[in-house]
Amino acid sequence: MAYINHFNATLDGLHFGGMFDGDFFLTWEKTWDEIQAVFTVADALRALREDNVSTKIFESGLGISLFRDNSTRTRFSFASACNLLGLEVQDLDEGKSQIAHGETVRETANMISFMADVIGIRDDMYIGKGNAYMHAVADAVKEGYLDGVLEQRPTLVNLQCDIDHPTQCMADMNHIIHHFGGIENLKGKKVAMTWAYSPSYGKPLSVPQGVAGLFTRFGMDVHLAHPKGYEVMPEVEEVARKNALLSGGTFTKSNSMDEAFKDADIVYPKSWAPFAAMEKRTTLYGNGDDAGIKALEKELLAQNAAHKDWECTEKRMTATRGGKALYLHCLPADITDVSCKEGEVAASVFDRYRVPLYKQASHKPYVIAAMILLAKVKYPQKLFADLVARGTNRFFG
Amino acid sequence: MAYINHFNATLDGLHFGGMFDGDFFLTWEKTWDEIQAVFTVADALRALREDNVSTKIFESGLGISLFRDNSTRTRFSFASACNLLGLEVQDLDEGKSQIAHGETVRETANMISFMADVIGIRDDMYIGKGNAYMHAVADAVKEGYLDGVLEQRPTLVNLQCDIDHPTQCMADMNHIIHHFGGIENLKGKKVAMTWAYSPSYGKPLSVPQGVAGLFTRFGMDVHLAHPKGYEVMPEVEEVARKNALLSGGTFTKSNSMDEAFKDADIVYPKSWAPFAAMEKRTTLYGNGDDAGIKALEKELLAQNAAHKDWECTEKRMTATRGGKALYLHCLPADITDVSCKEGEVAASVFDRYRVPLYKQASHKPYVIAAMILLAKVKYPQKLFADLVARGTNRFFG
Amino acid sequence: MAYINHFNATLDGLHFGGMFDGDFFLTWEKTWDEIQAVFTVADALRALREDNVSTKIFESGLGISLFRDNSTRTRFSFASACNLLGLEVQDLDEGKSQIAHGETVRETANMISFMADVIGIRDDMYIGKGNAYMHAVADAVKEGYLDGVLEQRPTLVNLQCDIDHPTQCMADMNHIIHHFGGIENLKGKKVAMTWAYSPSYGKPLSVPQGVAGLFTRFGMDVHLAHPKGYEVMPEVEEVARKNALLSGGTFTKSNSMDEAFKDADIVYPKSWAPFAAMEKRTTLYGNGDDAGIKALEKELLAQNAAHKDWECTEKRMTATRGGKALYLHCLPADITDVSCKEGEVAASVFDRYRVPLYKQASHKPYVIAAMILLAKVKYPQKLFADLVARGTNRFFG
Repeated sequence: MAYINHFNATLDGLHFGGMFDGDFFLTWEKTWDEIQAVFTVADALRALREDNVSTKIFESGLGISLFRDNSTRTRFSFASACNLLGLEVQDLDEGKSQIAHGETVRETANMISFMADVIGIRDDMYIGKGNAYMHAVADAVKEGYLDGVLEQRPTLVNLQCDIDHPTQCMADMNHIIHHFGGIENLKGKKVAMTWAYSPSYGKPLSVPQGVAGLFTRFGMDVHLAHPKGYEVMPEVEEVARKNALLSGGTFTKSNSMDEAFKDADIVYPKSWAPFAAMEKRTTLYGNGDDAGIKALEKELLAQNAAHKDWECTEKRMTATRGGKALYLHCLPADITDVSCKEGEVAASVFDRYRVPLYKQASHKPYVIAAMILLAKVKYPQKLFADLVARGTNRFFG
Repeated sequence: MAYINHFNATLDGLHFGGMFDGDFFLTWEKTWDEIQAVFTVADALRALREDNVSTKIFESGLGISLFRDNSTRTRFSFASACNLLGLEVQDLDEGKSQIAHGETVRETANMISFMADVIGIRDDMYIGKGNAYMHAVADAVKEGYLDGVLEQRPTLVNLQCDIDHPTQCMADMNHIIHHFGGIENLKGKKVAMTWAYSPSYGKPLSVPQGVAGLFTRFGMDVHLAHPKGYEVMPEVEEVARKNALLSGGTFTKSNSMDEAFKDADIVYPKSWAPFAAMEKRTTLYGNGDDAGIKALEKELLAQNAAHKDWECTEKRMTATRGGKALYLHCLPADITDVSCKEGEVAASVFDRYRVPLYKQASHKPYVIAAMILLAKVKYPQKLFADLVARGTNRFFG
Repeated sequence: MAYINHFNATLDGLHFGGMFDGDFFLTWEKTWDEIQAVFTVADALRALREDNVSTKIFESGLGISLFRDNSTRTRFSFASACNLLGLEVQDLDEGKSQIAHGETVRETANMISFMADVIGIRDDMYIGKGNAYMHAVADAVKEGYLDGVLEQRPTLVNLQCDIDHPTQCMADMNHIIHHFGGIENLKGKKVAMTWAYSPSYGKPLSVPQGVAGLFTRFGMDVHLAHPKGYEVMPEVEEVARKNALLSGGTFTKSNSMDEAFKDADIVYPKSWAPFAAMEKRTTLYGNGDDAGIKALEKELLAQNAAHKDWECTEKRMTATRGGKALYLHCLPADITDVSCKEGEVAASVFDRYRVPLYKQASHKPYVIAAMILLAKVKYPQKLFADLVARGTNRFFG
């Protein structure tokens, strides 16, 4: 099992001790080495699974998932990651629970965590709220652990918040690394992170923000393009600018999809809602102002409709590097004439990239598992050697 | 553990290699030997469990269940089968997911399958759609596997479609085999697969069709009886006729419950909707014609009500072989004066057969597990020997 | 692992053979030794988990949960207990099932139990129904087992019924035992089990009844206080009186919160609905009388509102033994100015007891696991020794 030595050698060169007993909120809160450790551990877990070596490090234990927005792929990715490590998923479905009775976050968090080793939360709809909620949960269970209420401290994994979508963007980046044959090949590559038209309303900003905050660390030229009025959070742009400065890349902005696509090596055309509108919506929801929400929705759809030309067409793809930029999407995409009349991407473009898109998504379960593992295991190199030595097959047959 | 040698000897005499790496859609797509292999493996798994030998062949892995119709027993049977083999069930609840956004079957199927070893689907409501949907899912994940998106190919198990209900009918048949003391005793036995009155509307045709398509392979005289207008799919009748010809049995039809019950060894009285009405309903649903659906429902209930005399009464049971035909039902039954005023079966008949009925149902988890196992394991004989040698107890205590 | 010898020595002195192959409905149906065995096994399981020894006694098997009322903590406690022992939880969500078709309890119970080792039920809303329903389920699966339908007899655990809430009250008592340093220190301690005002309607009586039925066995002076009209079930009061007589404690009643709190060592202020009103509601629900239910609700809220002074205030706490009574609550509490304008307890009191309250709750998963284990394992002492000898880590890393 020489491949494990390869991963372990990489890990030997990285400092990631700060992840032990920690949480994963935002990629830019992690060091360069920590980010690399996640990719390395993700790939190692995948290699072990492909080699039929069980990576169950928990004989029992729960992985709690709390989704405040509908989800298929993130839900299944989290379930897959937990299962890979031996944790049983329990969904905290707020509808089935007594949380509405007015109990505090601190209380709920502790009550569900007596045997929880990880809590995964998706809470992306309300600007200024999602990430804060995750911190409140993480603080609560940390306090519960220190108070002797919980026997273990559950790790919190951000499955998408109002600021970042770290499991998605880390999966995206690992896909890019594999596609281009290594991190060393990414310097100077141009990434077009652009808005695209969608007939639906209120998509989160976490993907463009997450891309801006992560991809700028790899020496790439990240170009963020969107129509006027579709700005992302200024704090995240600031992070991106600083990252680019440090990594030797650039972070540029425009209001032109064509400018973004020109000579791009990677394109990520995707709809999102205007930051200001999302803020307004958060206030309206807070006030229970249903009429206001409906009016806002109408207004936003009309605003979107003014930018139907923001579509990833064959023509636009031709303008990319050699006409062959790597097309990315977090899925599901709004595909013109397939899932809607006019959407983010032409059907022929999407179809040509279907297999790479699915491979992009396939990294997510392993990235999540790696985040959990690095919070639980101080010496993953030793663990991997021990797992190989244990020799339990994932499939016995 | 001599019993394992017994099952292995049976398997040694069967050719079932075609099931490896395959799916299970319709019983008549499987060879005689393959059908026997399912029964044998099901019985072997049961014997091992009764002997407290763990049959967990997966240390980790997911079993995805997708129910497009309410279900208790099939849902729990699938969950039990997965659990018996070591797979954790994850329900794909379309309500909680983003599937409504318009993504394709191919995409969803791959997105949920990164760690899925089996996908079980129930989709029985729409004529011409359910089985086709299952094939679309199976094709998608096979393609995903070949494209390197998925690390394993999930096996598809049909948990009830518009054409067949293979896990039910295989469980029914295994019950019959045990009841009559072996397949060799089934030749010439008369089976009355008959329609029965129910006050409810739109029950699937998959059970009568599945029985016609499976039981005719055992040299039995299968008599399908229903009121005029309650025809099943002609293609399935054609399968039944061919099967009977090959097996030395018969497949006859009538519009008389009494004719069916006369001298029957086995009776299976059960309500279903007319094929033509189900087709019409499929179209109405496709068009979103709610008024049309309501009108059709009213019409169908009125049509049903014209046949309230199609009930499995004590008097009718008296006309069966020795008055002691084996009464079958897939459950839940509409029991007269218990679950409804007028139903499929008299309470006294149902009560007398309660224990056999429950035993009939008890075969389903093992049949499902056997279908999964035969798609995953090339040499089950070796696996069984290995499981015994491994000696892990299911219950340690 | 000397600690196991300590627990085993305690178990050696107890007669609890009657729990083997049994169910857990009401604490007062269990002997003193059996109750002690639950506490001892719960503590042993906790000690093993803290020592990273896996207590998975099931390699496969299902734990069925059936909640007929919303729940967070009991749901997660049951899931945690099952997971700790190796059982996978499957929720029987009546909405997703076919139970509405009119099938019997006996049938459903068997259909879901082919691989079920435990069934946990919460059914607390209807006086005279919940406990009876649990018995019907337990009887059905016992019969199924004896008839050869089920290969194992699932144990039934009462997760809250109309009469008792044994997993809660046993967890409460284990918390008290730990707090006061042993059962021997409880004699003569005064417990104030009192009603408290809540703006919500129809809370179950199972906690005050469970406390009256359990705490009176420990030689304590249990004082039940509530406004006139909030009586609990007379049968349970009778149990409490008999218990007190046998244990050398007392069971007293009053209509004064102040009288209850005076010199109390333990206070348990909690809202509940009047027994007579709950009976009336059961009838109204049975008749489908929605207007009647709404009228009753209005009436009950008005009745509650007449007793807003029944609040656990700082002033009242001052009157307890040394001003330092142990404050208990099953959570979630109605906290004044936090979860409601006027509630059961002052925020400052609740906050001061937050850590003990969470510890109180932390006993529940272990108590449930102990109840299951004692129904499954005849010689837990041998099991514990075997688990230590097996040496499987819960967390391998």
